[in-house]
Amino acid sequence: MNFWPDRKVCEPQLKEMRHIMSRLVMKFGGTSVANIERIRNVAQHVKREVDAGHQVAVVVSAMSGKTNELVAWCREASPLHDAREYDAVVASGETVTAGLLAIALQDIGIQARSWQGWQIPILTSDAHGSARIESIHGDEIVKRFTERKEVAVIAGFQGIHAPTGRITTLGRGGSDTSAVAIAAAIKADRCDIYTDVDGVYTTDPRVVPKARRLERVAFEEMLEMASLGAKVLQVRSVEVAMVHKVKTFVRSSFDDPANPQPGTLICDEEDILEQQVVTGIAFARDEAQITLRRVSDKPGVAAAIFMPLAEANINVDMIIQVVSDDTTTTDLTFTVPAIDFERAKGVLEKARSEIGFASIQGAMDLVKVSAIGIGMRSHAGVAARAFKALAEKGINIRAITTSEIKFSVLIDAAYTELAVRTLHSLYGLDKA
Amino acid sequence: MNFWPDRKVCEPQLKEMRHIMSRLVMKFGGTSVANIERIRNVAQHVKREVDAGHQVAVVVSAMSGKTNELVAWCREASPLHDAREYDAVVASGETVTAGLLAIALQDIGIQARSWQGWQIPILTSDAHGSARIESIHGDEIVKRFTERKEVAVIAGFQGIHAPTGRITTLGRGGSDTSAVAIAAAIKADRCDIYTDVDGVYTTDPRVVPKARRLERVAFEEMLEMASLGAKVLQVRSVEVAMVHKVKTFVRSSFDDPANPQPGTLICDEEDILEQQVVTGIAFARDEAQITLRRVSDKPGVAAAIFMPLAEANINVDMIIQVVSDDTTTTDLTFTVPAIDFERAKGVLEKARSEIGFASIQGAMDLVKVSAIGIGMRSHAGVAARAFKALAEKGINIRAITTSEIKFSVLIDAAYTELAVRTLHSLYGLDKA
Repeated sequence: MNFWPDRKVCEPQLKEMRHIMSRLVMKFGGTSVANIERIRNVAQHVKREVDAGHQVAVVVSAMSGKTNELVAWCREASPLHDAREYDAVVASGETVTAGLLAIALQDIGIQARSWQGWQIPILTSDAHGSARIESIHGDEIVKRFTERKEVAVIAGFQGIHAPTGRITTLGRGGSDTSAVAIAAAIKADRCDIYTDVDGVYTTDPRVVPKARRLERVAFEEMLEMASLGAKVLQVRSVEVAMVHKVKTFVRSSFDDPANPQPGTLICDEEDILEQQVVTGIAFARDEAQITLRRVSDKPGVAAAIFMPLAEANINVDMIIQVVSDDTTTTDLTFTVPAIDFERAKGVLEKARSEIGFASIQGAMDLVKVSAIGIGMRSHAGVAARAFKALAEKGINIRAITTSEIKFSVLIDAAYTELAVRTLHSLYGLDKA
Repeated sequence: MNFWPDRKVCEPQLKEMRHIMSRLVMKFGGTSVANIERIRNVAQHVKREVDAGHQVAVVVSAMSGKTNELVAWCREASPLHDAREYDAVVASGETVTAGLLAIALQDIGIQARSWQGWQIPILTSDAHGSARIESIHGDEIVKRFTERKEVAVIAGFQGIHAPTGRITTLGRGGSDTSAVAIAAAIKADRCDIYTDVDGVYTTDPRVVPKARRLERVAFEEMLEMASLGAKVLQVRSVEVAMVHKVKTFVRSSFDDPANPQPGTLICDEEDILEQQVVTGIAFARDEAQITLRRVSDKPGVAAAIFMPLAEANINVDMIIQVVSDDTTTTDLTFTVPAIDFERAKGVLEKARSEIGFASIQGAMDLVKVSAIGIGMRSHAGVAARAFKALAEKGINIRAITTSEIKFSVLIDAAYTELAVRTLHSLYGLDKA
């Protein structure tokens, strides 16, 4: 599969050039557009692709720090601010970057215009603050690719809810999703996510210096990695890429625009020739564990516990149920984000009479370490090797969850680095 | 004429209240919304009017400093930036304030929503950077006044050019024009322009401490004052107010919201009972004078001089033509903004052969001092008294222009304060 066509063409073939040109979406995050100098650098990346004959749509985030500033103002104006107004305010950060990049592109001779979400339009649900893209009308953009050779510079993160005509935003990291969804809508050959790292790594290189950049990662693996703590892409963007089969590269915007590195390709499983058993190790800090002792073992008890937590918008993750010493009751253990720990305990205390339990116990400062790899499907005993290796290092496993292509262990946060490095070596991911 | 209805109503009349309530536009400039604390203060001003039973549309500028920041980025990205992109970028400042004020209003229990120019829509010409409002569709806003008792918080300065769907801006100070035009569109009973001064003064109080706040100023006078250097209102906003007879108040946003002062009413001439001969003294610094010596006195020579200047976008103001000592030629003198002085001389040197003149002379550091008053129409010799008074102070007049309700003199900038004070006293404008 050839994403950067660089076939040799002879004179008679030149007329056919337009058929082999690619259509690209290039997405640049906040640190890549942090100031005008960096925006000029982004313009050079875009110029390279335009000069190569490609049709380009660029998706941009707000200049780094701007979104935080806008969010802080909304909170200062009212702790319980209207999500519709919040969206109108916060979306303006991306609007500014799109206009500035269009100007910077024109300055180096590239035909370009900016697009706000409502101008395209990018239609979304009305879930303000975390809206879902419903459809994108990319016809005008595509028409301008051909008729005017114009680069479309699109404000990421934002859309419009058509029935109300109000601006929406897609939630933190939403520009990734904008980029992938636009790539799907305009049938782009690929979507390049430019960021401040040069690709997806086997794990966080700050924790494991021996971490390697991956050349290719399967959509399913990337989805698990993003869900389990890898911050390189928004989870939703990977879902969209997977569903619409958008070939997505994670690349560095800090490369020399004249000499870019390929980064990591997120692609279909079939496009990965040498499949590893484990592709990467992810970890999520700030987990907390809650154990309810001697929960009466009767039908409906799980609902009595987890419904009130769901209503309080608390995300419950790993759930383990074990028969307690008293055989008519069970002990029930689960994890919540550390930030929700106290609130979750309060919710459960309130529901104590309906649930029926002897006591609540809890632990903070936990970390969930996960190993991900589609090779696990066809290999048995992958997780068992990890349990053994961690035990040999004296690391106590508090909880385990597994799925078809990953397993996770909950351990004390103090062992994070040791556990991640142990698993990274165990599965042969260390750099040669 | 009663702008703040405060009639006593007895019980049976309460049902009729809606008929005597007013519909108001309140406009707040950049310093009035400079931070969240000030935006909260603005919300209190709005609350006062809502509590009094009025229907309120609020028009806001960008937080002070924000527009400058955005403009600087555009210039940094390209000195010759695309005005359409500039507009998209710069308009975002007002969008942010509108959202934040809506949030702050909701926080104190006032139903409110923000509106961007394109959402209303405010339709404009495509003269990006200085677009003219063509029409405003205020129906939805008015409907929400009645159906939801909702305050409309409108981003000033911005609109949309419908055929292209691009964002436009109205030029510096454009939020004043937005406010007055919206007031006309929704048939508001009055338009309150809240600013950092408490009204329109007989002249700049920083130059003449004895300057008095005017209770009323006629539209025509305000138009001349704004054109001749008074910075309190954008010229275009006064034109719109005059054409649509929008009763406009200039008031202070720094007043205690619970105890606001009335400010200055800009109104029809007929509504001003005691008309002064001179209402105010305005002055514009940074004028430059150019004199062409021995211009051949033939038809078409004025066009040969002023067409190239107009093409170079240089604004020529006071023009004086005198026969030179050689009777077959004339000397021609005119003023330009000091910032365009060198450029204007260059343009004229280039056109020298077509025009035909002996030499160019110039002077910088000039000021144009003007006296304005509709009473001049019915009083002769008003300007003559000024020439005499200025001569007595030893101030040399370089040029004079007059119109029905004002006269202007061009003098050396060093005499600005002396001249303004002299005229201010001469026409009886000093505070008692």
